[in-house]
Amino acid sequence: MEQKTPRDYTHQVSVGGVTLGGGAPVRVQSMLTAPTKDALACLEQINSLVENGCELVRAAIPSSSALEGFSEICKESPIPVIADIHFDYRLAVAAAQNGAAALRINPGNIGSWEKVNAVIDAAKQASIPIRIGINAGSLSAEVSSRQDLTLPQKMVECAKDYVDHFIKAGFDDIVLSAKAHDVLITVETYRELSRKLPSIPLHLGITEAGTKLQGTIKSSVGLGMLLAEGIGDTLRVSLTAEPKDELPVAWGILQALGLRRRGAELISCPTCARCRVNLFDLAQQVEERLQTLRLPISVAVMGCEVNGPGEAKNADIGVACGLRSGTLFAHGEILRQIPEESIVDELFKEIALRFNNRP
Amino acid sequence: MEQKTPRDYTHQVSVGGVTLGGGAPVRVQSMLTAPTKDALACLEQINSLVENGCELVRAAIPSSSALEGFSEICKESPIPVIADIHFDYRLAVAAAQNGAAALRINPGNIGSWEKVNAVIDAAKQASIPIRIGINAGSLSAEVSSRQDLTLPQKMVECAKDYVDHFIKAGFDDIVLSAKAHDVLITVETYRELSRKLPSIPLHLGITEAGTKLQGTIKSSVGLGMLLAEGIGDTLRVSLTAEPKDELPVAWGILQALGLRRRGAELISCPTCARCRVNLFDLAQQVEERLQTLRLPISVAVMGCEVNGPGEAKNADIGVACGLRSGTLFAHGEILRQIPEESIVDELFKEIALRFNNRP
Repeated sequence: MEQKTPRDYTHQVSVGGVTLGGGAPVRVQSMLTAPTKDALACLEQINSLVENGCELVRAAIPSSSALEGFSEICKESPIPVIADIHFDYRLAVAAAQNGAAALRINPGNIGSWEKVNAVIDAAKQASIPIRIGINAGSLSAEVSSRQDLTLPQKMVECAKDYVDHFIKAGFDDIVLSAKAHDVLITVETYRELSRKLPSIPLHLGITEAGTKLQGTIKSSVGLGMLLAEGIGDTLRVSLTAEPKDELPVAWGILQALGLRRRGAELISCPTCARCRVNLFDLAQQVEERLQTLRLPISVAVMGCEVNGPGEAKNADIGVACGLRSGTLFAHGEILRQIPEESIVDELFKEIALRFNNRP
Repeated sequence: MEQKTPRDYTHQVSVGGVTLGGGAPVRVQSMLTAPTKDALACLEQINSLVENGCELVRAAIPSSSALEGFSEICKESPIPVIADIHFDYRLAVAAAQNGAAALRINPGNIGSWEKVNAVIDAAKQASIPIRIGINAGSLSAEVSSRQDLTLPQKMVECAKDYVDHFIKAGFDDIVLSAKAHDVLITVETYRELSRKLPSIPLHLGITEAGTKLQGTIKSSVGLGMLLAEGIGDTLRVSLTAEPKDELPVAWGILQALGLRRRGAELISCPTCARCRVNLFDLAQQVEERLQTLRLPISVAVMGCEVNGPGEAKNADIGVACGLRSGTLFAHGEILRQIPEESIVDELFKEIALRFNNRP
């Protein structure tokens, strides 16, 4: 019996058929960098995102010319496309009419409640949800100037105001985000949002997280903490890198927490002076070949025969490397010795034998 | 006034003059992969680790021949060297006599309490601490077979037995670790260790965490959670990669949680269709040049002039890139426009001007 968490109590929303919240699997998102007027480039990018595990994709619509390709992208995309609009409510209305599976706006930069209402009406008509995306850097002047509140409290106040307005306008098909680039501020904000607005599904992210390495660390630390507490219904890892690089990080976080699994898990030791093979290369080779298989198994690649099979006895299969040979094992039980040059091949033969035909 | 955390209440230990526990800064460790008999190669590796922020280094002593270079390494190393010994207590005794700043043993594989006592005596004589390193994969048969305990409970039971023995032997200069390759098991184990043995400093790590990306994610998620709860006095990030690659990850985790800071923080947006420059290259260039400076400042590199200065207004300095030019800003205030080709140079000129001469 699994324990219930905050994400089991959020209102479930459907983004183009992909459920989100209310105990649905935590959804993995990314965002296009190709301009939407180049529909072909966008669709290519979407395909590479999908291959890497993307379930929902967002596209910025910075101007009316960006709307041209947008409706074609929405028609052809294998996953739902969310339109991201700043400043101009007319772009949001047009995106809703042109096939967007959801809208993302920051009501604080739309200009007036009347304009926000026009966006709400368009979303109602199209039967699509809206994500209210708040950003620490762009809070309303009113909330921003309050000296009595911390930044997380300001973001939560702002979120409550917006949610109140949407609910009063008869619209509750909403998802909420409140991103900052500081990990602790982000964590505190989402914890408070989850307590104060427990029914609203939350989209998690650390914004402007930085380059690939720094962004991976900050997202893993911050989103990991929240997801472990049961907070967050969908996530986007933001990296200053190719969008497809965001996906292995998002999936890695979910996998580390046992929330979802995509493909095999590799267990490999950091090597020490006991190790007599080039384990880095070997582990890399195994990781790459595993990616093509998508089997939900754990595979160990260990640097010594002394500790290897024992330390990786929970692995479904593994190899412990010695001098010029390796020991193949499964669930801690030794299968056979294999010569060094065919370690990877023999490992994958055994994987094929044991796991490829299972239901 | 900072709130006290579990790490403020651990007993403080000194590893070759580097304090650990009792509210000392969370110490960053790594481990040599070069064999200790090649002292020169080890010292070179240590220098590259130190450059990347390593404060304590561990060396495996798998045999008596490994002891040869070890004492020379201990003499020449700019940071304390910890000897890591499995199975043979005589190697641990000899390492203590040959300059080790601390020992790391797993009492479960030393053979008998008498042999463990010989190691304790050698550490007493040398006035050095011992890390008791438990590993989920190598628990004592007695504890391992208990059906009434979960794996984290088994590790904690095992740790308590060992700690009891050391204390009874009149030795409390200990650090404790209990690593697993599963993130949630590791987190649960350390939380329980911190509750049950609140005075013992804890060395954190996820073992066999995998390749660079997977290991970075698993370590960031797991160690991040623990460190955020105030648990953990020192950490090692284990990656199946070059040891020096472990250090930016360890520092990145500490920095993300505001626990320690090493050098500048880069804030950069993930780019979207609004972005008209190659921000990935630009951010990478800025990150690399920042690493040489070691200034504790935050620097923003943003993809558009619309949101850039606002979203990064907490940054000490930053640039928002537009079409063929950039906007230089500091604390959200715009300084001046700069042409695209000199964005990086102008940014660093301004950094030198503003921060290089500050106390």
